[in-house]
Amino acid sequence: MPSIDLNSDLGEGFGAWTAGDDRAVLDVVSSANIACGAHAGDPVIMLDTCRAAADRGVAVGAHVAYRDLAGFGRRPVSVTPDELYADVVHQLGALTAAARVAGTAVTFVKPHGALYNTACADPVQAEAVVRAVADVDPTLAILALPGSELLLAAAQNGLRAVSEAFADRAYEPDGSLVPRGRPGAVLHDPEQVAARVLRMVTDGVATAVDGSEVRVAAESVCVHGDSPDAVATAQAIRALLTAHGVGIASFAGATAS
Amino acid sequence: MPSIDLNSDLGEGFGAWTAGDDRAVLDVVSSANIACGAHAGDPVIMLDTCRAAADRGVAVGAHVAYRDLAGFGRRPVSVTPDELYADVVHQLGALTAAARVAGTAVTFVKPHGALYNTACADPVQAEAVVRAVADVDPTLAILALPGSELLLAAAQNGLRAVSEAFADRAYEPDGSLVPRGRPGAVLHDPEQVAARVLRMVTDGVATAVDGSEVRVAAESVCVHGDSPDAVATAQAIRALLTAHGVGIASFAGATAS
Amino acid sequence: MPSIDLNSDLGEGFGAWTAGDDRAVLDVVSSANIACGAHAGDPVIMLDTCRAAADRGVAVGAHVAYRDLAGFGRRPVSVTPDELYADVVHQLGALTAAARVAGTAVTFVKPHGALYNTACADPVQAEAVVRAVADVDPTLAILALPGSELLLAAAQNGLRAVSEAFADRAYEPDGSLVPRGRPGAVLHDPEQVAARVLRMVTDGVATAVDGSEVRVAAESVCVHGDSPDAVATAQAIRALLTAHGVGIASFAGATAS
Amino acid sequence: MPSIDLNSDLGEGFGAWTAGDDRAVLDVVSSANIACGAHAGDPVIMLDTCRAAADRGVAVGAHVAYRDLAGFGRRPVSVTPDELYADVVHQLGALTAAARVAGTAVTFVKPHGALYNTACADPVQAEAVVRAVADVDPTLAILALPGSELLLAAAQNGLRAVSEAFADRAYEPDGSLVPRGRPGAVLHDPEQVAARVLRMVTDGVATAVDGSEVRVAAESVCVHGDSPDAVATAQAIRALLTAHGVGIASFAGATAS
Repeated sequence: MPSIDLNSDLGEGFGAWTAGDDRAVLDVVSSANIACGAHAGDPVIMLDTCRAAADRGVAVGAHVAYRDLAGFGRRPVSVTPDELYADVVHQLGALTAAARVAGTAVTFVKPHGALYNTACADPVQAEAVVRAVADVDPTLAILALPGSELLLAAAQNGLRAVSEAFADRAYEPDGSLVPRGRPGAVLHDPEQVAARVLRMVTDGVATAVDGSEVRVAAESVCVHGDSPDAVATAQAIRALLTAHGVGIASFAGATAS
Repeated sequence: MPSIDLNSDLGEGFGAWTAGDDRAVLDVVSSANIACGAHAGDPVIMLDTCRAAADRGVAVGAHVAYRDLAGFGRRPVSVTPDELYADVVHQLGALTAAARVAGTAVTFVKPHGALYNTACADPVQAEAVVRAVADVDPTLAILALPGSELLLAAAQNGLRAVSEAFADRAYEPDGSLVPRGRPGAVLHDPEQVAARVLRMVTDGVATAVDGSEVRVAAESVCVHGDSPDAVATAQAIRALLTAHGVGIASFAGATAS
Repeated sequence: MPSIDLNSDLGEGFGAWTAGDDRAVLDVVSSANIACGAHAGDPVIMLDTCRAAADRGVAVGAHVAYRDLAGFGRRPVSVTPDELYADVVHQLGALTAAARVAGTAVTFVKPHGALYNTACADPVQAEAVVRAVADVDPTLAILALPGSELLLAAAQNGLRAVSEAFADRAYEPDGSLVPRGRPGAVLHDPEQVAARVLRMVTDGVATAVDGSEVRVAAESVCVHGDSPDAVATAQAIRALLTAHGVGIASFAGATAS
Repeated sequence: MPSIDLNSDLGEGFGAWTAGDDRAVLDVVSSANIACGAHAGDPVIMLDTCRAAADRGVAVGAHVAYRDLAGFGRRPVSVTPDELYADVVHQLGALTAAARVAGTAVTFVKPHGALYNTACADPVQAEAVVRAVADVDPTLAILALPGSELLLAAAQNGLRAVSEAFADRAYEPDGSLVPRGRPGAVLHDPEQVAARVLRMVTDGVATAVDGSEVRVAAESVCVHGDSPDAVATAQAIRALLTAHGVGIASFAGATAS
């Protein structure tokens, strides 16, 4: 039976504030990118989200970010490679302990927001992130854009490099994402999004914005969970994949327990 | 050769702010209580302090605290046991990763400030701290006041319980500390402090405020490092102990490398 | 035409996080207790909420709090009177400037959460809050529980003292609130709550938990806005008051423009 | 008697952390750029620094900054003009209230660190800062580099634009500063620095790095206070100016009391 990993950003509240319906998303996905307190998340939320993931056999990943609660990690922060290295060690270490006491384990790292964008494009920041991960635990995978500097650095540092596709984003004919803000960049219809994911998994292709077919080879598909629509979309994806005999399973295999 | 552990609070800066002459203190002590980002410390400082400790063979401990940068962890914070458990898991995990990439390992946990005072006296908070430590790593020691709820909880949870004495604090005849703010509560003369520590180590006693002798049985002595005086005192202690053939070594034995 | 002030807590998001449907509540109430960045709120949200209040002629109050974003201001913080004084000056000053550039002005101060509870009961904290307000602007009112230390301190310091009642809380026969957590402490039915508010305004009484009548003399009624239910309740209160010819207007009269 | 304003950054501690010997510097300068809680400072420190300035008749300015305690405001932060406007309103409002209760008043605004550099060069950020200041209080001055976008925007928005020179920085022949990091960019000898300031004040010139003379027309001279050397330098400047009959006085004239 073919299978694919579905990943989603989770645990993105802070203190009394919440973001998204984490329980509903955890019932759909196979990998949880858990906020580590830098852009969102706090010790209680991190632990609670690890436990909810462990209960459902969902793999746990560290959603590391620039330290910027006020900006939700969406703004570039001018950090040196040494600062970024230390930030990743800190966040990954904190989530590692939370996962352990929740009876599971971190199996991958996916940078968040502005750090994702920067480290996918900038080899210096990519190297800082990946070296931190490798030094903390060389068995972890890095989850990022295909062909990105992050995945290149992962391979060079002996880490598993896992490519992800985006369920609700339009693609250019060359396989890159249509930038947000351009018309049609984000797809909203759950059925259409689900159908695209099914094609990505079964045929390895998507229809690009110009109508041509583009290869999309990914071991994981990112689905969003921070709006009611997004939950419905995630559920539609799971339903359609399941109906077509496609399994939903972490790229990391079974998680620790 | 008899030996004693000397511990000190380190890594208590934040961002551009510093606190104390950490390098001078690390040259004296055998155990570093490293701030974990809750009352002080940040990812860069934590990593840097771990490296400096590793370079000198100084044991690394997690100086866990209430999350209160504004109050330097000196104010009680109303946390539930579940929140405190999560806070300790988070801080200990972050320092564990920093120590690992610095080539060393966390070997003990000592709460800081208001959390130290509360958890020494309150069995509920003591249990929350100790269970968190035990769940993250059951080989760690807990460093606290002799007879405290923290050390009781450590023993009950199968963790090593390590008692500490205070180099520069006056003792009551019953072995408790003279409360800060009372005349003579804190000793300032480096030679006098050093002589007291030597007697604690060699004879297991100290002269109490009323002139009587009080038993002070401790595996570790806390020396402070956040003032020029304190550094001089720490150096005087080391010099006197060394001159009398007393070794200075972590209670945890050799640290990982 | 008789009239009453309705006040509600607003602007309680932070960064990317939101709390409640502020626009819907602002369409109902006559006074906005705006978070000042200590328990919630940030410069953008404070300014935006001031502008939305100014657009609707809703009076602006400073919802000052302990500095505790992580705890949403619901936890007591051990502050000295001097620290609390400085905290209130800071928060009130920041909101004063936001109100000014929004074309309105702060007219009252209402402490939030744990600070409200503490300063209503503790004359030392009450005095620190009130002196700070009086020193910044002696024309401001203090909004708090009838008979509280806060209102006593307000009167003693020459500030206007404004009593508030609670729309959705049950009262003891002696006029105090039934503590949260006790059965029936919080009323949920919008129509029932609206009817109680109408009686408070027109007759100055409420039915206590034991069925007796209790006097409730208040210049303002607090309605909550951080749940869909609460918005419906606020709307029901406004509708019922309006239908009975009761105006809804700030106790402070017309606001600056 | 000719006179010049000396300005210095003050109140740059946070919680238990301190930075510089503020009292010694306040005894030398005529204008205090007081941190407003964004890059440094907290409510207690802001109020305390305002009081110390008021005691000495030193003018109070708002040292507004990007919200970045972790980076001490030295890192560019990607903010929209609306966010920057709100940030400045907030910080200026908070300091305005602190100054008022301290018996003085804010008379000018000088951006800090990365915001200073950005807003001196970028007309969009300059406009956001200046509009915020003008909307809060159109009587305030803006203190910045001669010829900067900040001073241009100040003039365009009807605010007083005040140029500053730097006591300890080397100048290029064109009047710009030699960039930090270049040899000789920062001058360390107190007597040499004092002599340069005297020439700036009396002759309006400085010797540039190539030995040529460059015009330096400034109403204020920035002296630093965050190192023991810097305090000595500030004191040397004051002594030399006084010995030559040059007064030291705020460009704003007498401050409120």
